[in-house]
Parts: sequence; structure tokens; C-alpha cells
Amino acid sequence: MYPLIPGHEIAGVVMEVGKKVNRFKSGDRVGVGCLVNSCQSCESCNNGFENHCNGGIFTYNSIDKDGTVTYGGYTTSVVVHERFVVRFPDSMPLDSSAPLLCAGITVYSPMKYHGLNAPGKHVGVLGLGGLGHVAVKFAKAFGMKVTVISSSPGKKREAMERLDADAFVVSGNGEEMEAARATMDGIINTVSANTPMAPYLALLKPTGKMILVGLPENPLEIPPFSLVVGNRTLAGSNIGGMADTQEMIDLAAKHGVTADIEVIGADYVNTAMERLAKADVRYRFVIDIGNTLQIAAAQ
Amino acid sequence: MYPLIPGHEIAGVVMEVGKKVNRFKSGDRVGVGCLVNSCQSCESCNNGFENHCNGGIFTYNSIDKDGTVTYGGYTTSVVVHERFVVRFPDSMPLDSSAPLLCAGITVYSPMKYHGLNAPGKHVGVLGLGGLGHVAVKFAKAFGMKVTVISSSPGKKREAMERLDADAFVVSGNGEEMEAARATMDGIINTVSANTPMAPYLALLKPTGKMILVGLPENPLEIPPFSLVVGNRTLAGSNIGGMADTQEMIDLAAKHGVTADIEVIGADYVNTAMERLAKADVRYRFVIDIGNTLQIAAAQ
Repeated sequence: MYPLIPGHEIAGVVMEVGKKVNRFKSGDRVGVGCLVNSCQSCESCNNGFENHCNGGIFTYNSIDKDGTVTYGGYTTSVVVHERFVVRFPDSMPLDSSAPLLCAGITVYSPMKYHGLNAPGKHVGVLGLGGLGHVAVKFAKAFGMKVTVISSSPGKKREAMERLDADAFVVSGNGEEMEAARATMDGIINTVSANTPMAPYLALLKPTGKMILVGLPENPLEIPPFSLVVGNRTLAGSNIGGMADTQEMIDLAAKHGVTADIEVIGADYVNTAMERLAKADVRYRFVIDIGNTLQIAAAQ
Repeated sequence: MYPLIPGHEIAGVVMEVGKKVNRFKSGDRVGVGCLVNSCQSCESCNNGFENHCNGGIFTYNSIDKDGTVTYGGYTTSVVVHERFVVRFPDSMPLDSSAPLLCAGITVYSPMKYHGLNAPGKHVGVLGLGGLGHVAVKFAKAFGMKVTVISSSPGKKREAMERLDADAFVVSGNGEEMEAARATMDGIINTVSANTPMAPYLALLKPTGKMILVGLPENPLEIPPFSLVVGNRTLAGSNIGGMADTQEMIDLAAKHGVTADIEVIGADYVNTAMERLAKADVRYRFVIDIGNTLQIAAAQ
């Protein structure tokens, strides 16, 4: 619906609060993720899983309960119900924490709910991009052994030296895939392309779990044997509730987990889109709306 | 490998035990399921999950650790390591308990390990055959609400009146499927045909789980959205370990769970195969080898 204002990983400072708001005050450093409203009364909402509410309202291009269209973060200000705002600890930088509001909770939540947050367990991270690099950081924060699985041999150094992964497997290398067979407790699958899943499911130990957080366009083809033999699991995961999002931010602050970003001005977005299509960014562009606007005002 | 003797749901009486056997004695009423050996020393075996052992030996047509070929239950006697023998409580009939040794553990194990054994939860049983009818009985024994989902409207009366299911949904009936949408905590999928999974996954509540226990020949097509939205799970499950198999038999005895069977003589097996192909049996044929042999001896 046009006009459309995207942006669902928003970090900023509270400018003003309504009369009934009691969790935030002007000047607080806060974030807003994918959701800005929900029914706030169903079983999912009552249990803290607003992400499962049938009445969930997305941060942009949704119709809110009052009939207005929601607008996202590529703007000077947004108005959000306090339930859908998270607090940034003082130590958290606004720019590199912003992507955690979607990418961070997307990989944190399945680690928590599928038992992939225990020291000593072995998790694979399939795909090293915006989601994958944050998954590596959280997994290391949980004290897990982390193996990055990627089709790009060139990412090995990045994965192991800069992100501190414990191992790297090139998905097209049969020997490396065979050596990693049945060694992983879980895999966070961040890939949005339609690649065969059976070779990756074979990396799981018995009762191991692959968690889909990407959204390939076409159906995945899953050979039943890949799941039945060894009681393996394929599960989906979709962001997280607000309490979990705050918990994720607090844990990130404690362990110094942030996204790797390149800060750009709003006038660079078309170039950024072109570079994004070529995967030419490590790993997220963050638009500094405030700074852009100051420059625009000075011209 | 010929000669081949099938049969992996075996009930009978112990005729003789080896010197080191201490769990069984001659005359004990016992059962043998899908496995007759394993490495007995790996992590899976040590944790009671012989079904996940890479060295698992199937009851027939496998090569055992001593190099011999295993022969199944369609014969007068089998020799099995005591670890792979389960004890039948006195109240358990041999004939109608025999199918529990594969069909029973196959549906019991995923209920236990995926939390589908709690009173008040709602489980769907997809397909009402040899596995499905036992799944309904165990689910009712656990105190759950049970909905049978079947392509055959004619099975409604059978499901609800004889098996005591709480509800019945015809999978081809759009209205019934829509009414059941997002109502189930789990689905035990016993279907071995390649049918689209998305309509069934939509019956699951958020975080609901579909457990595959059938083995369709071709890959399942799973739209990623079906799993990601609502954090749904598709998991496989493959029989169970020996401790769980004994636990399943004991629980079955306590609740009077048995398979519905038609007892036949060995001379009827060709006819039975033809009827099986037409799904003309409720629900399992059981071959009474002992009786057959007595008759043969008298002729």
C-alpha cells in the first residue's frame, strides 16, 4: 500500500510518551522490531508470544486496529504501543544493535526453545549472512560449539577468525560433509534458497533439529527417511515474543553481541540495494536517518 | 536375501535360555519387535535408544554381528539376545499384543517424546489403519482429546463409536478442515502416501508438531511458511528403544490397549496379502504359527 515506509529493525530515542505509558520516558534508548501491535488478549499474547497472535500487526504496511496503515522506521519518528518497545541497556550501541530486533530474535528464539543454548552442544549455522553471522555470535555466547556450513569456501576465514566459529564446512565438498555427518545437535538454517535439505539433515545427530528461519520461495523437498531415521526434526521459527526480544537484547548486551554493520545515509539506499543483491555487505546496512536529515537540513 | 523369513511383531513363549540370561526363564510370555541386536555400547545404546544405533540389526534379513542372516517370526522359534526381548504382563493376550511390538511403539514413542501424552491436549491421528487405530487407543489412554483425520468418510462411525475418538475430520471436506484449523497440539501422521502436507500442518496450533511415522516413497513437499508461521514442527520417529518398548507394553496392559486383529493360519497368507492390498482388514492380520503347525502335523 503506497505510500509505504519500510524499516522493521528500528533503534532510537523516546521523544514523547502517552499519559498511560509507565515503562518508558522521554530520552530512553529503545528499539522496535517486526511487530507494533497484536490483539493483546489471546492465549498466545497472554503467554508472551505476540508473534503467534492471529491479530499481530506488522511494523509497516499493515492495517492497525484503528484502521490506520502502519509505517516503518525509515522516517524521523514512529508511534508504538509500549508493549512492543524494548529497552536498550546503556552499553548497547543503537546502530549495531538495531538489526538484532529482527535478525537477533529470529536466531535467538529457536536456540532457546529447541535446547540449542547449552554449553558443549554442537550447532551448525547454515548460511553466513545477516542472520547467520548473528546466529554464530549468540551460539558462541551460549558456549556452544559452532560449525558454519556455507557454499562459499571464501567465507572460511571470516567465519573462523573473525566470528570465532569452531569449524567450517563447505556444503559442496563431499568429504567435509561426510566428516560432519551425524555430529550436530541442531542446525539454524538461514538460507532462503531452495536447496536440497537431505544432505544437511544428515549432519544431525539422532533427535537433532534443523530450524528453518529463512523462507525459500518454493516448497522444500524432504525425503521422509531423512526425518524418520534418527527421529530428526525440521521446525520453523518466526521472530519471537516481546519478553523474549527483551531477554535477547539483555543477553546480547551482557556478551557484547551486536550485528556487523555498515552505516549509510538515506541518499545511499539505492546503491545499498544494488550491493545487497550482490551480497556485497558485511552484513547489514543500517540507515542513519537522524544524520541524513541533519545533512539535508544544512544543504 | 533368500531364504527370507519375515515377521517383526513376534509374541510367544520362552522355550530355552542361555547360561548368562537372567531376565527370562523358560515359560515366560514375551515379545520381540523390529530389532534383535545393536552395538550395545554407543551413546544411543547406553541411553536406551537402540533404535538409533548405527549397528542396529533388524529382526529379519539383516546380517548379525556374527555374520549370520537374521530370520523373523514366521517360524517355530527365534533366538534373540535378552536385551531385545520384552516381557508380557499376565493380562496381555499374545495374539492382539503382538502388533504393539512395532505399531504400538511406533506411535507411543513420539507421543512420549513430543509431549503428546498429557491429559487435555488435542492430538490428530492422520490415517486410520494398523498404526492409526493403535495411536487412537494410546492417545485415549493418555487422556487426550483425539481427532481422527481420514480421506474415508465411511470410517467415521468406526473411529468414534468403536475406537472412542472424540472427533472425525474428512480430509477432503474443506469446511471440516477449516473448522479444525489451528486446534491441534500434535498430529501423528501414519500415512504412507504422498499427499500434500500443508493442509494438515494448518490444523496445528502455534508450536504444534506433526510426527511422521509413515514412510511415503517420494519426498514430502513442505512449504516453508507452513512451518515458519506459528513455529510448527515436522519430526520423524522410528520405533523406540527397548526400555520404552517395555514401558509401552506395561502401559498397554494397564489400560487394556491391544491391536484389533484377525488371526489367520499360515496357509492363508497369500489371501491375506491380497486383502491387505485392498485395506480389507481391521487392522492387522496375525499369523498363528503354533496352531497352523499343529494342524499341519495332524493332516
